[in-house]
Amino acid sequence: MASPRSPQGQSAHQVRSLSRQNHVTNTAGLAPGYLQANLLILPSRYAEDFHNLCLRNPVSCPLLGLTSKGNPHTIYPSTCIQEKDFDLRTDCPKYRIYKDGKYLESRTDLLNLWTDDYVGFLIGCSFSFEDALSETGLKPKHQITGTMVSMYKTCIPLLASGIFKGGTCIVSMRPYRAEDVERVRDVTRPYLATHGEPVDWGWDALERLGIRDIESPDFGERQDFEEDEVPVFWACGVTPQMAIESAGDRIEGLVFAHEPGHMLITDFTVKDLESLGKPRYN
Amino acid sequence: MASPRSPQGQSAHQVRSLSRQNHVTNTAGLAPGYLQANLLILPSRYAEDFHNLCLRNPVSCPLLGLTSKGNPHTIYPSTCIQEKDFDLRTDCPKYRIYKDGKYLESRTDLLNLWTDDYVGFLIGCSFSFEDALSETGLKPKHQITGTMVSMYKTCIPLLASGIFKGGTCIVSMRPYRAEDVERVRDVTRPYLATHGEPVDWGWDALERLGIRDIESPDFGERQDFEEDEVPVFWACGVTPQMAIESAGDRIEGLVFAHEPGHMLITDFTVKDLESLGKPRYN
Repeated sequence: MASPRSPQGQSAHQVRSLSRQNHVTNTAGLAPGYLQANLLILPSRYAEDFHNLCLRNPVSCPLLGLTSKGNPHTIYPSTCIQEKDFDLRTDCPKYRIYKDGKYLESRTDLLNLWTDDYVGFLIGCSFSFEDALSETGLKPKHQITGTMVSMYKTCIPLLASGIFKGGTCIVSMRPYRAEDVERVRDVTRPYLATHGEPVDWGWDALERLGIRDIESPDFGERQDFEEDEVPVFWACGVTPQMAIESAGDRIEGLVFAHEPGHMLITDFTVKDLESLGKPRYN
Repeated sequence: MASPRSPQGQSAHQVRSLSRQNHVTNTAGLAPGYLQANLLILPSRYAEDFHNLCLRNPVSCPLLGLTSKGNPHTIYPSTCIQEKDFDLRTDCPKYRIYKDGKYLESRTDLLNLWTDDYVGFLIGCSFSFEDALSETGLKPKHQITGTMVSMYKTCIPLLASGIFKGGTCIVSMRPYRAEDVERVRDVTRPYLATHGEPVDWGWDALERLGIRDIESPDFGERQDFEEDEVPVFWACGVTPQMAIESAGDRIEGLVFAHEPGHMLITDFTVKDLESLGKPRYN
C-alpha cells in the first residue's frame, strides 16, 4: 500500500513503525505536515457517551477518527490511517493507563491490557494551527521561548453527554499584540478539526472564562506579556482527558490515553484540515 | 417525484405547497412526524462565518441543511427537501426581515427581496424531542398547560466565528421531577440534530448558567414548579437568531428568518433523527 511521505522527513507510516519498535521518545517535529492526534481508549459501554461528547463539543474535542469495537487495526474514516498492519495498541510511542479516573502508570504498548471490548478515539490537537501561525509571522511565544503553552481551567461548561457531566473546558493561551488578534483569528479559523479560531481574547476575557490569575496556569508554564500584548485563548485537547478524570469511578475498567507529547501520527495532512470537521454532502 | 407522506395527515410536501399559496398560518402540529426547521438567510459574504458558527456550536445551532449561493431551489443534503420545485423564497409560511440586526417587517414570501447573493440555512428545532418526551409519559409542562416554553439568556459563550462574536447561548427550560431527570436525559440524548440531551439541570444550574430569576424568562412564558420539580435546560434554536441580532450593523444588507412558529417543514422524519448530526464514514 502506498504510504504518504512528507517532503521534509519521515512519513507518518515510518514514525508509526518506529513507535511500534519503541524507537520514538516524543513526536514533536516528527513527520512534519501530518496531523498528530490525542488518543483515548474506553470500554465499549462508555463509547457512545464519549462519541456524543465529542460531537456536542467539537471545538474542545474535535474527533479525527475512531475504531469499531475491539478492532485495533482499522480507524474510520479510512483516510485517517491507511495501512492495514496498523495497530492502535503499539503504534503510539507511549500510553498512559487510568483507573477510576486516576493515572496509574505508563507503558510502551497495550498488548497485554487490550480486550475485544475497547473502542479508540483520535482527537485533533493544536500542533497544526501553530504551524500555520508560524508561517504567517505569528509564531506562538512559547515556541520562541522553548516553554510549554499555558493552560487554564475555565467556567465554560463541557456540554453533558451521559456519564460525562459536570465538566468544564480547558483552554490554552498564547500572548499576541492586540492589533494582531484579528489576523490570528483569520489564520486559525479554517482549522475546525484542530480547535479552529480562538474562543475568546483580551484582558476582559479572564472574567468571562472564570480565570482568576493569568500568572498561574493550571497546566503548562506561565508566559510573559509585553505591554501591548493580550491573552488569546483556544479550546484545548486536554479537555477530553479531564472529562475522563472527572468521570472518575463512574467508569469501570481501565482507560488508556497517549502520554503527553507522545502523540499518534495520522495520515491526514495539513491540506486535509481545510475539509476536516465540515460535513460532506453527496 | 415520490413525496413522503405522514400516516396521520399531510405530507411535508403538501404543507410546503399550502405555505406557498399562503394557506398556512402556523406549523404547530402540521405534517406530524416530519422535522420542522428554523430558517436563516444571509448575504453570501457572511455565509462561511455563519456556517462555521453552526459547526462550532452544534448543540445550539444544529445544521440540518443549506443552499448553495443564490439557489433557492435545492437544499443540501438532498434528503432534507426532496422535490425539485421547492422554493425557499415561498415555501415557509411567513418570513421575518432584519436590517442592521433589528426586526423590520414580516412577509409571506421573499420573491421581491431575494438576490442571487443569498445563502439559506435550515436549523433543527426542539419539536421532535418534545414528541419523544410525550410518548414516554414525560410531556413538557408548557404543552400540558398550553403556554409557551420559558427561555433564558445565559453566560455560556457561543463560540466565536468571524463576525459572530461575543454572543451567548439561549436555553429553553422545562420543569421535571428530580427523579425523572435521568430518564429525560436518556430520551432526548439520541436527537443530536434537535439540541439533544439537556445542557444542565437542577436548582444549582441557575448559578452556573448565570440565570438570576427563574420567574422572569427572557422569552416565552414563566412555568410553575411543583415542590419536587427542578428546572431542566436545553440549548435553544433562538440562539442563532440572537447571534444575527448581536452582529447588528456588522451585517450589511437584509437578513431573513422564519416568523416564530411558522417553520419550514423538511422531508427528514423522526426516524432520520437517529443518524442526523452524526458523521458518516464511507
